[in-house]
Amino acid sequence: MSDAPRPWVEAYAPATVSNLGPGFDCLGLAVNGPGDTVRARRSDTPGVRLSAITGDGGRLPLGSEENTACVAVAAMLSAIGRPELGVELELDKGLPLGSGLGSSAASACAALVAAVSALQLEVGIETMIDAAREGERVACGTPHPDNVAPALMGGIVLIAATDPLRVISLPAPDSLYLSIYTPGCEVATAAARSVLPERVGLDAVVRQAARLGMLVHALHVGDLALLGEAIVDDIVEPARAHLIPGFLDAKVNALEAGALACTISGAGPTTFALASDEGRAKALLEILEQAYTHAGVPGAGRVEQVGPGARVTSRALH
Amino acid sequence: MSDAPRPWVEAYAPATVSNLGPGFDCLGLAVNGPGDTVRARRSDTPGVRLSAITGDGGRLPLGSEENTACVAVAAMLSAIGRPELGVELELDKGLPLGSGLGSSAASACAALVAAVSALQLEVGIETMIDAAREGERVACGTPHPDNVAPALMGGIVLIAATDPLRVISLPAPDSLYLSIYTPGCEVATAAARSVLPERVGLDAVVRQAARLGMLVHALHVGDLALLGEAIVDDIVEPARAHLIPGFLDAKVNALEAGALACTISGAGPTTFALASDEGRAKALLEILEQAYTHAGVPGAGRVEQVGPGARVTSRALH
Repeated sequence: MSDAPRPWVEAYAPATVSNLGPGFDCLGLAVNGPGDTVRARRSDTPGVRLSAITGDGGRLPLGSEENTACVAVAAMLSAIGRPELGVELELDKGLPLGSGLGSSAASACAALVAAVSALQLEVGIETMIDAAREGERVACGTPHPDNVAPALMGGIVLIAATDPLRVISLPAPDSLYLSIYTPGCEVATAAARSVLPERVGLDAVVRQAARLGMLVHALHVGDLALLGEAIVDDIVEPARAHLIPGFLDAKVNALEAGALACTISGAGPTTFALASDEGRAKALLEILEQAYTHAGVPGAGRVEQVGPGARVTSRALH
Repeated sequence: MSDAPRPWVEAYAPATVSNLGPGFDCLGLAVNGPGDTVRARRSDTPGVRLSAITGDGGRLPLGSEENTACVAVAAMLSAIGRPELGVELELDKGLPLGSGLGSSAASACAALVAAVSALQLEVGIETMIDAAREGERVACGTPHPDNVAPALMGGIVLIAATDPLRVISLPAPDSLYLSIYTPGCEVATAAARSVLPERVGLDAVVRQAARLGMLVHALHVGDLALLGEAIVDDIVEPARAHLIPGFLDAKVNALEAGALACTISGAGPTTFALASDEGRAKALLEILEQAYTHAGVPGAGRVEQVGPGARVTSRALH
């Protein structure tokens, strides 16, 4: 142990689009685009401390039992039997809160990757994902894995089982484009969960499972039209649509303009449409923008492709 | 129109294993093995008549509104707008009734293929499947597609949607063996449906969909261990297990002996175990036989692989 300042390690974790229609709570993808950044350095004091947050407008808690980044890193240290280790974190939010883009997941996953590197640990991906899920539990009440798994692994990830965790990387078609628009309203994940039906009919179970099977098949054969056909959700989307002003107009307009699919990302309000070329994707983004502007909730959006997961971006910064 | 006797066309449709764990009502496969045979010839009298049934022990109805073969062919003629056509059928049952091997589906599908050939029609596969589903409606009360689709198409079939029908052929691994045992008790499909839960929790929906996604992925990558891991069903199998004396013992013994998976085929009582080589499959078949013999319901079984669908087997027989 010495008092010399330890080097900082910086890591980045991307935004994620989850659910993807029939994949509620078990499917998500990482995008090439905005994300959260976390710096970590070893500390002589045991435990995890978050010493600074920027980019959140002062809304996130610094407390180590409330912030998703701290909770995730503490859960990881506990899981590997190293609770005596100490780490200091700084979080720079690049993602809007409560947007449906996996903001809490990105903070947790960037923190995990930065901390693992700063502490020079070897930690398996399942342990990382389960630790990040503890961050989700604090952020929204349930340890749902469909943002944290793709945020860590990148690409398109099926969470095939959670107890024990079983994750599967699915093929991502090169020509898949997402038009992602976040309207200017918030949907808290906890609130979006409270509107879900507790129980559904057996016929709905069959439809949901069959569509997820079709979606996985479509990714394997690279059939984007079939992928779009599979991205239909008559359980979760109908329950949440009314929480997002203008969503149904946005969806109808996007589908009429040739979107392969259009639905809510995660708990919303972020809405995404799929296209098989960049030009169509840009046109769809304008359509989403017009619909949400017309509904009085203008926001911001971008065209993305599927991208890699959380990674170390630099070391020994300051 | 002439009074000369018209040539008979004979067609065969195979047994099918349906549900396959998480694929309740949306997944099934055809086996290389026993099946039903139907002879058809054109008649000058409009409508469908079943003039003989053999192999059923006198249990099946000859009436054209009750027999699944007649109902399916009549539905097909109606769907293509040719209700004025007449066809005579003879059915030879090779499959036991109420066994969970798609007995009613095999009769309907063999009848459709024989009739289409005898009448020299061109009928699309979706129309054939939907017509065969009408036979299932008469046989058990619901037009479930998971036996008729593989019985017609062969291989492993995902019924991705039913309205309109969307069927997908999935890859069948060459080294997949099924140990299929039909204990000496009957389970009526209608009774097996009455024990199912009407509604299930949202968490069960997620598990079922995620497992079906894993199953489709496993078939695409040819990973039989993963396939076995995916064949878990905590919705339908637990509700039906008590209908089959000895099932739980058979399942436990098969899994302990290295089965990749072991569950009920369709509504049961037929039970199947999966293996990745023929020797293991034969050993598993003995284990199933021992368990059901011990439970007082000895029956019969065989080792099968995935096989082709319904086809014409001969013409101008008599």
